[in-house]
Amino acid sequence: MHILVLGAAGMVGRKLSERLLRDGRLGKTDITAMTLQDVVAPAQPAKTGFPVNTVTCDFAVPGAAEKLVADRPDVIFHLAAIVSGEAELDFDKGYRINLDGTRMLLDAIRLVGGGYKPRIVFTSSIAVFGAPFPEAISDEFFHTPLLSYGTQKAIDELLLADYSRRGFMDGIGIRLPTICIRPGLPNKAASGFFSNILREPLAGKEAVLPVSEDVRHWHATPR
Amino acid sequence: MHILVLGAAGMVGRKLSERLLRDGRLGKTDITAMTLQDVVAPAQPAKTGFPVNTVTCDFAVPGAAEKLVADRPDVIFHLAAIVSGEAELDFDKGYRINLDGTRMLLDAIRLVGGGYKPRIVFTSSIAVFGAPFPEAISDEFFHTPLLSYGTQKAIDELLLADYSRRGFMDGIGIRLPTICIRPGLPNKAASGFFSNILREPLAGKEAVLPVSEDVRHWHATPR
Repeated sequence: MHILVLGAAGMVGRKLSERLLRDGRLGKTDITAMTLQDVVAPAQPAKTGFPVNTVTCDFAVPGAAEKLVADRPDVIFHLAAIVSGEAELDFDKGYRINLDGTRMLLDAIRLVGGGYKPRIVFTSSIAVFGAPFPEAISDEFFHTPLLSYGTQKAIDELLLADYSRRGFMDGIGIRLPTICIRPGLPNKAASGFFSNILREPLAGKEAVLPVSEDVRHWHATPR
Repeated sequence: MHILVLGAAGMVGRKLSERLLRDGRLGKTDITAMTLQDVVAPAQPAKTGFPVNTVTCDFAVPGAAEKLVADRPDVIFHLAAIVSGEAELDFDKGYRINLDGTRMLLDAIRLVGGGYKPRIVFTSSIAVFGAPFPEAISDEFFHTPLLSYGTQKAIDELLLADYSRRGFMDGIGIRLPTICIRPGLPNKAASGFFSNILREPLAGKEAVLPVSEDVRHWHATPR
């Protein structure tokens, strides 16, 4: 099984890649090759039991996706995205990466031909939802994103569902909450302060909570 | 007030244009000019109290939308679309017209500049919803389209909401049900048989109901 990870140098991408490399399999299937892609160079892992190829490129430029799927990876983890704060600040960039990039990827898969139908695991976001929220968000809670980032993720979900229904791929979207504690410097995620208020005091630094103390938010954290 | 109607030669576009031409105003504002666009030539109305320009072009080719909004129409009725059956049969054409075309239009409006912020009225569809349906569909019923057409319309709604939130336009989407009785020959709408089963017997022709007799569906009909 050949696995392609897009956005492999990000926080979630690194954790996922490390786990796949350590396990050497996904579910019950042995991994035979991995490709790690990101716009910044992904770390080349040492001592792997199978070939691991690292690719440094912008996946959202015309032609990039075609190259990434040309050798027909069986499973594609699509984690590549502009984060929420940046997508809100830079309208064109957000739509270019988060919508056009994803659509070019889905179209590249669709056009490989020869019955190619990979599993594609897409990281969506709870930003597809908009306040006010009920006590619990059910599977049928409607999508009224309040940011361009959430709009782009909601559109990607719709595309993924339609392309899967059409038989071009076997897609699944996972709506991730804020993943923390993010190591290193803050990124441009609008929810980045949730990492900051935990990480900075641990490092002896001051952190500012920019929202009311009674704000309730969804988190997940890797081991 | 200058009004632009995209898809002016279609059933809804013709009815809408006739009404606007007859009233000479929209709400309380006098119409001073109209532009009627379609991919087939819109009829040139006779004896109007203001200039009416007809444009025959594919609105979804690069550069077309820029020309259509260059003289800054105050209200844009965007009715141009590939219907459901055709969007399902021709994947690329459906996405090109219903998604790319709409997005190019919204981007053309966004990039006019100088504070241009038109009212845009977009005809969406009940196809943004997917069965099973509740007894009544509330404003918060979630969107799980079962066809590419509904997917494209749901994406357009998300774009319209985000572009309006950003202040690029004052957009509204209207989810039209099946509009019947459509005159003339059937088109490629998946729901076209709802017109057929009413129109054909009136013309002494046989019509086939392709669904179960207990199917319940939403209709509207112009006067």
